[in-house]
Amino acid sequence: MLKKIAGGVCAAKGFRAAGLHVGVKTHNVNKKDVALIVSDVDCSAAAVFTTNVVKAAPIHVTKAHLADGKARAVVCNSGNANACAPQGEENAEKMCAAAAKAIGCKQEDVLVASTGVIGQTLKVNVIEEGMPKLYSLLKASEAASDAAAHAIMTTDLVKKEVAVETTVGGKTVRMGGIAKGSGMIHPNMGTMLCFLTTDCAISPAMIREALLETAKVSFNRISVDGDTSTNDTCLVLANGMAGNAEITEKNDDYAAFLEALKALCVDLARAMAKDGEGAKHLITCNVAGARDEAQAEVIAKSVISSTLTKAAIFGCDANWGRVLCAMGYSGEQFDPEKVDVHFASAAGDIAVCEQGRGLPFDEDLAKKILTESEVEINIQMAEGDGVCTCWGCDITYDYIKINGDYRT
Amino acid sequence: MLKKIAGGVCAAKGFRAAGLHVGVKTHNVNKKDVALIVSDVDCSAAAVFTTNVVKAAPIHVTKAHLADGKARAVVCNSGNANACAPQGEENAEKMCAAAAKAIGCKQEDVLVASTGVIGQTLKVNVIEEGMPKLYSLLKASEAASDAAAHAIMTTDLVKKEVAVETTVGGKTVRMGGIAKGSGMIHPNMGTMLCFLTTDCAISPAMIREALLETAKVSFNRISVDGDTSTNDTCLVLANGMAGNAEITEKNDDYAAFLEALKALCVDLARAMAKDGEGAKHLITCNVAGARDEAQAEVIAKSVISSTLTKAAIFGCDANWGRVLCAMGYSGEQFDPEKVDVHFASAAGDIAVCEQGRGLPFDEDLAKKILTESEVEINIQMAEGDGVCTCWGCDITYDYIKINGDYRT
Repeated sequence: MLKKIAGGVCAAKGFRAAGLHVGVKTHNVNKKDVALIVSDVDCSAAAVFTTNVVKAAPIHVTKAHLADGKARAVVCNSGNANACAPQGEENAEKMCAAAAKAIGCKQEDVLVASTGVIGQTLKVNVIEEGMPKLYSLLKASEAASDAAAHAIMTTDLVKKEVAVETTVGGKTVRMGGIAKGSGMIHPNMGTMLCFLTTDCAISPAMIREALLETAKVSFNRISVDGDTSTNDTCLVLANGMAGNAEITEKNDDYAAFLEALKALCVDLARAMAKDGEGAKHLITCNVAGARDEAQAEVIAKSVISSTLTKAAIFGCDANWGRVLCAMGYSGEQFDPEKVDVHFASAAGDIAVCEQGRGLPFDEDLAKKILTESEVEINIQMAEGDGVCTCWGCDITYDYIKINGDYRT
Repeated sequence: MLKKIAGGVCAAKGFRAAGLHVGVKTHNVNKKDVALIVSDVDCSAAAVFTTNVVKAAPIHVTKAHLADGKARAVVCNSGNANACAPQGEENAEKMCAAAAKAIGCKQEDVLVASTGVIGQTLKVNVIEEGMPKLYSLLKASEAASDAAAHAIMTTDLVKKEVAVETTVGGKTVRMGGIAKGSGMIHPNMGTMLCFLTTDCAISPAMIREALLETAKVSFNRISVDGDTSTNDTCLVLANGMAGNAEITEKNDDYAAFLEALKALCVDLARAMAKDGEGAKHLITCNVAGARDEAQAEVIAKSVISSTLTKAAIFGCDANWGRVLCAMGYSGEQFDPEKVDVHFASAAGDIAVCEQGRGLPFDEDLAKKILTESEVEINIQMAEGDGVCTCWGCDITYDYIKINGDYRT
C-alpha cells in the first residue's frame, strides 16, 4: 500500500514551493538561501523543537504562531541562524510578515525557521526585498520542491527529500518532506530542519500526536556529533485536500497515516545521518534482546554517539571493544558477559564478540564489510525482548575541516 | 609551603620504580610496556575506578586486593587492556603473583592495572618472564620514575609526571604521580591511569576520602572525547615514611595533605587534557556566576565536551555561538540573556558575547588569541556565585587518524 513517490513537499495536493538566493549567504550567489512552502488552503499544523535551553528566535515565533494549531505556509532562510542575535524575534516576525503579504494570509499563519551561523544580525531586508520574486516562483512541481530543499541546506552535500503515498479511509493520501541536517545532529530532537506536507485531513490535535510519535522513532534516533542545535525544528502542514474523513481520534485511519509518516521520517532521518558533516559511512546500530525498548534505545544511541567508535568505523576497523565500551558508559545496567556483537553490510556479516569476549575472526572479511558505505553494528543482549535501531555516521578528517572554520 | 619538586613517583621516601619492554607491545621493542612501583613498607592505599559497566579484569582484582585498605606495590602493563578478554582475572592475578614473588610480599598486596586494546588475550607469560629483570631495575631515582611513566603510555606523546612537597604536622611530606591519558578521557572518572605515591602517614579511611575529594575536582573535570574507558584507574599508596603523626581525621594536617594532593592531581589532569589524542590546544573553560558549583561544573563540562566547540578551537575560530549552544544542551536551566563570553590566552582577552548577544570584535585579535596552545573560554552567567574550571582539548585530523586504525 505504502509506496515511495516523487515530488517532495509538492507531492501532496495543494502545496507549492520555491527556493531562491536573496543574499543572506553572501559568499556564493549560486547558493539558494530562502525557501517558501505554501498550502492553497489552511492547514492543521504542528511542530517539535530543539530541547536546547538556548533557542533561536524563529522557534519562539513559530511556537506562538502555532497556538491555534493552524498554518498556511513556512518560510525558512539558511546562512544565518537568527540565534543569540540582535532583533531576533523582530526579524523572524518580519520574515513572516513579508511572506504573509505576498501570500495574502495572516502573519500568524506563517511559520518560520532559520539555520546557519549563530550570533549575527539577520539581514532581514534582503529577505523582505526578495519575497515578491520568491513568491512568483512558487510551483507545485518536483523542481520546485528541489529548489526549496536546496535553499535550506548549509554544509549538507546532498538534499534530503522524500515523499510517499498511502491509503487512508479509502482515499489516496500523499505526504512529503524536505530536511537539512549535517552537523549538530543529536537525539533529543535532532532533526535540524524538516518540513513535512500532507493532503491528509487530520485535526490539529491528532497531527501533533502523530508528529510527536514519529519524531521519537526517527529524528530522535540519529546522531552526527552529539551537539543539539539552537534551531532544530520539525514541522508538518496537513491541508485535508485528499478528501478523506478527517482523522480526529486514534482509529485505523490514524494508524495508516502514522505508518506512512514514520516511514517518511525514518527515511529523512537516515538521509541526515548518512550526510553527516564529512561522513563516509552511514552507521546503523540495531540492539536486540535489551530489557525493553527504552534500554535498547539508550544503548544504541550511546554506540552511535561514541567518538571512538565513529573513528574506528571511519578506519574500517572492526574494533568491537569500543562498541562494548560505549554500551558500558551509556548509563544502563546490563550483564556484559551476555553481549554478542556482529558487524554487517552488503558485503557480509561477521561475529566479533560472543558473551562479552572477543572471537577470532577473519580481519580481511571484517575490513571488506566495513568498507561499504552503509554498515551495521548488531548487538544481541539476552536480557529481554527490547529492540531499537539508531543511526549515525563516522567522524572524518572532513568533519574537522568543515567545523574548524565554519564562520569564514 | 607547597612546591613542585622532581622525582615523580620516586619523590616520596621509600618508593622505587622501574619500566621495561617485556613484549606485550609486539610492534616496537623500544617501547616499554610494564611498570612496577614498590614501597619499602606497607602502605595505606585507595583507588577510584571507571564508572563504565564494562570493567576490565584488573579493576576487579585491584578492588579485591584493596579490601583491607593496604598495599605494597603496583604493576601495570600497556599494549593490552585485559578487558573483555579470555582469562582476564586469572591473568591479572598472575601479574600480581609474579610481582609479589619478586618483591617477597603477599599477592593481595599488589595492585594491578592495564591499558591498550580491548578483547585480546593478555600474553601474561611475557610479563611473568620479564618480572625478575623488571624487579632488578627498581630504583628510587628520577630516571626510574621516568621509565615507569613511559611504560604506561599508549598513544600519549608526552609522559605525565609531577611531584610536590609540603609540610604536614611539622614534617616534610612528598607526593608524586605518573599518569597516562590521551583518548577515551571523560569526566565521571576520566583519569585513565594515574598512580600516586606519598610518604605521608595517613589511615586507609582518610587516604580514600582524600582521593575521592581530589578526583572530583581534577580528573573528573577533564574530557578528551567523551568516552569513558573500561580501565580507568587512579590509585594512591601512602607509606608513612615522612614520620608525621598519622592522619586519622579531617584536621589541619588532613587539609594540608589534601591541598597538596589536589594541586598534584590538577596538574596531572591538565597534562592529560593537553596531550589528548592529536590535540593542538589545551582548552580551559572557566564558568563563574552560576547558581552553584554543581551547575557551573555541568556547564563547563558540556562546553569542553562539545565536538563542535572543539573543532572551532582547532580552527582558531572564535565561534562563541557553539559555546552558548553547548551550555544550552547541558541539561541545566539558565537565562541565556545573562551570559557573557570571553576568549583569552597569553596573547590577550576578548569579549565576544554580552548578555547572550554577539558583540562586534576584532577577528584578527581573536585569531591571535586562539592560536596560542593554551586557551581559555571564560563564561560569566550572573545567576549566582557558583564557579568551576574544566579542561579539555581540541579535536584534530590527528585524532581521527590515531583512532581510525588503532588496533593495527
